Amino acid sequence: MPQLRIALAQTNPAVGDLSANAATLLEWTRRAADRGAHLVVFTEMFLTGYPVEDLVLRASFVDASIATLEAVAARLAAEGLGELPVVVGYVDRAGVAPRPGQPKGAPLDAAALLHRGRVVVRTAKHHLPNYGVFDEYRYFVRGDRMPIFRLHGVDVAIAVCEDLWQDGGPVSAAAEAGAGLLVVPNASPYEREKDDVRLALCADRAREAGCALAYVNQVGGQDELIFDGDSIVVGPDGGLIARAGQFREELLVTDLELPAADPTALPGAFPVDAKDGTTITVERVELSAEPLPAYTPEPPVVAPRLDDLEEVYSALVLGVRDYVTKNGFGSVILGLSGGIDSALTAAIAADAVGPDRVHVVLMPSRHSSDHSVGDARELVERQGLHSRLVPIEGIVDAFEKEIDLHGLAAENLQARVRGMLLMSLSNEHGHLVLTTGNKSELATGYSTLYGDSAGGFAPIKDVLKTTVWELSRWRNAQAGRGGELLYPFAVPPIPENSITKEPSAELRPGQRDTDSLPPYDLLDRLLADYVERDMGKGELVAAGHDAELVARVIRLVDLAEYKRRQYPPGPKITPKNFGRDRRLPITNRWRETPAT
Amino acid sequence: MPQLRIALAQTNPAVGDLSANAATLLEWTRRAADRGAHLVVFTEMFLTGYPVEDLVLRASFVDASIATLEAVAARLAAEGLGELPVVVGYVDRAGVAPRPGQPKGAPLDAAALLHRGRVVVRTAKHHLPNYGVFDEYRYFVRGDRMPIFRLHGVDVAIAVCEDLWQDGGPVSAAAEAGAGLLVVPNASPYEREKDDVRLALCADRAREAGCALAYVNQVGGQDELIFDGDSIVVGPDGGLIARAGQFREELLVTDLELPAADPTALPGAFPVDAKDGTTITVERVELSAEPLPAYTPEPPVVAPRLDDLEEVYSALVLGVRDYVTKNGFGSVILGLSGGIDSALTAAIAADAVGPDRVHVVLMPSRHSSDHSVGDARELVERQGLHSRLVPIEGIVDAFEKEIDLHGLAAENLQARVRGMLLMSLSNEHGHLVLTTGNKSELATGYSTLYGDSAGGFAPIKDVLKTTVWELSRWRNAQAGRGGELLYPFAVPPIPENSITKEPSAELRPGQRDTDSLPPYDLLDRLLADYVERDMGKGELVAAGHDAELVARVIRLVDLAEYKRRQYPPGPKITPKNFGRDRRLPITNRWRETPAT
Repeated sequence: MPQLRIALAQTNPAVGDLSANAATLLEWTRRAADRGAHLVVFTEMFLTGYPVEDLVLRASFVDASIATLEAVAARLAAEGLGELPVVVGYVDRAGVAPRPGQPKGAPLDAAALLHRGRVVVRTAKHHLPNYGVFDEYRYFVRGDRMPIFRLHGVDVAIAVCEDLWQDGGPVSAAAEAGAGLLVVPNASPYEREKDDVRLALCADRAREAGCALAYVNQVGGQDELIFDGDSIVVGPDGGLIARAGQFREELLVTDLELPAADPTALPGAFPVDAKDGTTITVERVELSAEPLPAYTPEPPVVAPRLDDLEEVYSALVLGVRDYVTKNGFGSVILGLSGGIDSALTAAIAADAVGPDRVHVVLMPSRHSSDHSVGDARELVERQGLHSRLVPIEGIVDAFEKEIDLHGLAAENLQARVRGMLLMSLSNEHGHLVLTTGNKSELATGYSTLYGDSAGGFAPIKDVLKTTVWELSRWRNAQAGRGGELLYPFAVPPIPENSITKEPSAELRPGQRDTDSLPPYDLLDRLLADYVERDMGKGELVAAGHDAELVARVIRLVDLAEYKRRQYPPGPKITPKNFGRDRRLPITNRWRETPAT
Repeated sequence: MPQLRIALAQTNPAVGDLSANAATLLEWTRRAADRGAHLVVFTEMFLTGYPVEDLVLRASFVDASIATLEAVAARLAAEGLGELPVVVGYVDRAGVAPRPGQPKGAPLDAAALLHRGRVVVRTAKHHLPNYGVFDEYRYFVRGDRMPIFRLHGVDVAIAVCEDLWQDGGPVSAAAEAGAGLLVVPNASPYEREKDDVRLALCADRAREAGCALAYVNQVGGQDELIFDGDSIVVGPDGGLIARAGQFREELLVTDLELPAADPTALPGAFPVDAKDGTTITVERVELSAEPLPAYTPEPPVVAPRLDDLEEVYSALVLGVRDYVTKNGFGSVILGLSGGIDSALTAAIAADAVGPDRVHVVLMPSRHSSDHSVGDARELVERQGLHSRLVPIEGIVDAFEKEIDLHGLAAENLQARVRGMLLMSLSNEHGHLVLTTGNKSELATGYSTLYGDSAGGFAPIKDVLKTTVWELSRWRNAQAGRGGELLYPFAVPPIPENSITKEPSAELRPGQRDTDSLPPYDLLDRLLADYVERDMGKGELVAAGHDAELVARVIRLVDLAEYKRRQYPPGPKITPKNFGRDRRLPITNRWRETPAT
């Protein structure tokens, strides 16, 4: 059987920076050539980065994407890399007449094959996802072509991302056309426990297409989305052949033995039934008909899987690092209360950008306990952060001299003075403010607008409180270990007392979280069912949650919608992160009341 | 020709409040019956309100919608209204097998005909809008039926909203089925100068369907969207017969002479080619075959059109009123600087909720000019608002005693102290904070995060500065006039000096807006082209904007994306309001740089 060495470029593009992404393409293609690869595959919309949202509706952006593709094809050839075929995602446009309801300019989530200085074929995603975090009917028109190119005697087909997730379409066309290999550029974001779904999907689709399948995924943080890599190669039987690491860039090079192309299948275009109610035009081209002389394959790489907590922690660290650096910040700042949320956020920040670029502020009030400052100071010492102490009492007094505040208004004032101090120091010194709230607080509205919710990025906004504790213990257990996503702290970075003490906002004397909220173990299980699984009141009670608690928590969650909208973005790790995948009206009187 | 008296219920539903909406349906149906109507038509998704966003993905919500529909049909009959047919929008679900990419539960943007205590037929929107502020591929599956019911010898067909805006589908099926009247429930938001498009569209589709067309639209504010009513009845030649007012509830009762139904067209279902690549099943039912005895028609109502500035002002007032009341607030609070933005916002607020529910705070600093407090005081007197004076100097000093701040950081501090004072008073007294920034500021990032941008609703966030001045002069010219959307101030509510003086943020000595921004007349024209028309750098220069100004403004606008995300919602009046119809990545390195 003919052989091919394929290189999957699991890379971290910058959204909108076409020049930088083109330069990365050249560099990684050179690395693939140095490894002796016969084909390089980049990710979905690699040249533009993904997702680009409404940028795609701007004509100048689409023009630049197409021009960059053509320029990079020429540059590959000019730099002696023209013989190595490259498959890469970009944005193109369909040459169709405008019609109502179609996105302006008819953009395509496209992929192209570059060879010998030319763009040989172009294709585009056929199935457009429009659920969860995806809005692709807003952005793209459907592709209806599938290229299949003969390379060293093997027929290689191209599909794009969602084309794997839905029935019919390009996978079906690849089977029909007798492809020997299906390559699939992706930009598929991380979600907790999604990785096994992805492998099962690749295996199913490989069997359906009747050929090996090479799945290459983007890596890196882009606003709320964290792309985890995890690129996969499976055989025609669905068996795993190679797998890249998670949450890191990697050039996954894999030798494959693949079926010889049918010599009677000649170049040209022909329609096939896509088995989803549409017709796809298969476009067959030939780069090289002769198989390569036999060579000794390299053993395939199968990166070990991370366990669940390491996956989550890695996603948070990568999300913070990329948000900070891609937005051009050199350092971060956060308030340290001595509690577990800010302690974990500090550890994530230190792992993401290094302790020397993490600035913390201790802002005790008249209600702060002795252990607050003590635990915060211990953390500073363990992690080696920059710290300063700013007591808030004088400022709070100055406010209270001008206006009379009681109860919640007085509590919120303290949180807001802290938020303002952080924002002021951010403006003065250029640090990005990290917000330290967790998902349980965010869900129930247990936070202060413009107070503890102020900031630019919220590392643990999608982490329930019980998981905050789990991650803290997990991180402490890694002391002594290092790596790309873990700073090599010699000692556990989080003080034990911050983990074990009872949670309190310390905004009034003797306050405890349980004064306002149910115990976190009960609350978090209920939130997972209500928020992440969209269960209604009846279903929640049937699932064993206490009816009174259900009514109370639904009410808290529903009323906090406005606060959540004003919250900074943060890394998405679950199916519902209070970001773009959960969109509710603010003016919303739905209370599961009985119908009239 | 047979006659029919149709009543279009141009109403203001509450999103999620199924009980309240059902009660409104009963009340308005009784009013229609009292007026002798033979058919009542409510708006799109009237029972649930529109838009409901992700609520529709919750099974309990869809269940409640369907149960409410059935209950309200029974209640109409029980209350003696069963003989009067009612067409009403609600949410239903399609009985289709789940598949990947389809919204959970397969919801339908449905409409039903109620008669004699029963739901006679059900249909659903065929064309799903997924652009601008609409995300309907996320929420709904496509309807593929079109009911046509015989009422007093006239065949009446039903289509829903977007079915008018796109080619083929129900309008085409109505023509095919020989309908004598097409009724169309809508929830179509206001956009500046959109009204003429709407009339032209109704006229075109009536001619295409070959019958009269009755278009009934929702009215009222729902978060950022303002529905303007403007319900329309046109004849089969497209000629205008009747038109309801804008920005107010109205029962538009119109007598029509309509073609007699073909007696050979019998009840039953049959497929027709929808001329958009799909097939629609026409479902023909009969309520009453005999025409009514001839009666004397009432003269049709054609409400006069508002001029452009009155439209905009009305949208802002209605938007504020509904956001305040639907969210359960009894009063509003805002900071009054003496400048034009807060002056106009105060006037809008007073018109929306009455001056007695408007609280203003004057917060001078060491940099405030004499005229600031003077102009603000004059406004308070002209409008009769509640006011208080809170100097910020002492609080600013208390901050500066703890941390050293310079330049922008020191300016932002002042804005933030004011934002915190307003939030504190809001928390203490329960007022909703109104944010006073305009669209020119928001576009260029000329505002302070958590400072002047703090609040719950931003009445003029979609109004460019030059339009702020125009609206202020317009409002002053209405002094002495009253009405549902104008408080009857005897004198011009805005001090002349606030309109004519040079704009300044007054955050440092002698500061002027033009220190940081281009003159507003140049800036606003450029913003309209860049933001609302999505023109690229090259197009902008070609359109006559100064190249240096273009580069500078594009940079300002692009860098301010994060601030805009954190801004409160506000009434949308233009095609791009920095709300849900303009979605850009925060991490975005697209700078229209030349391609590699």
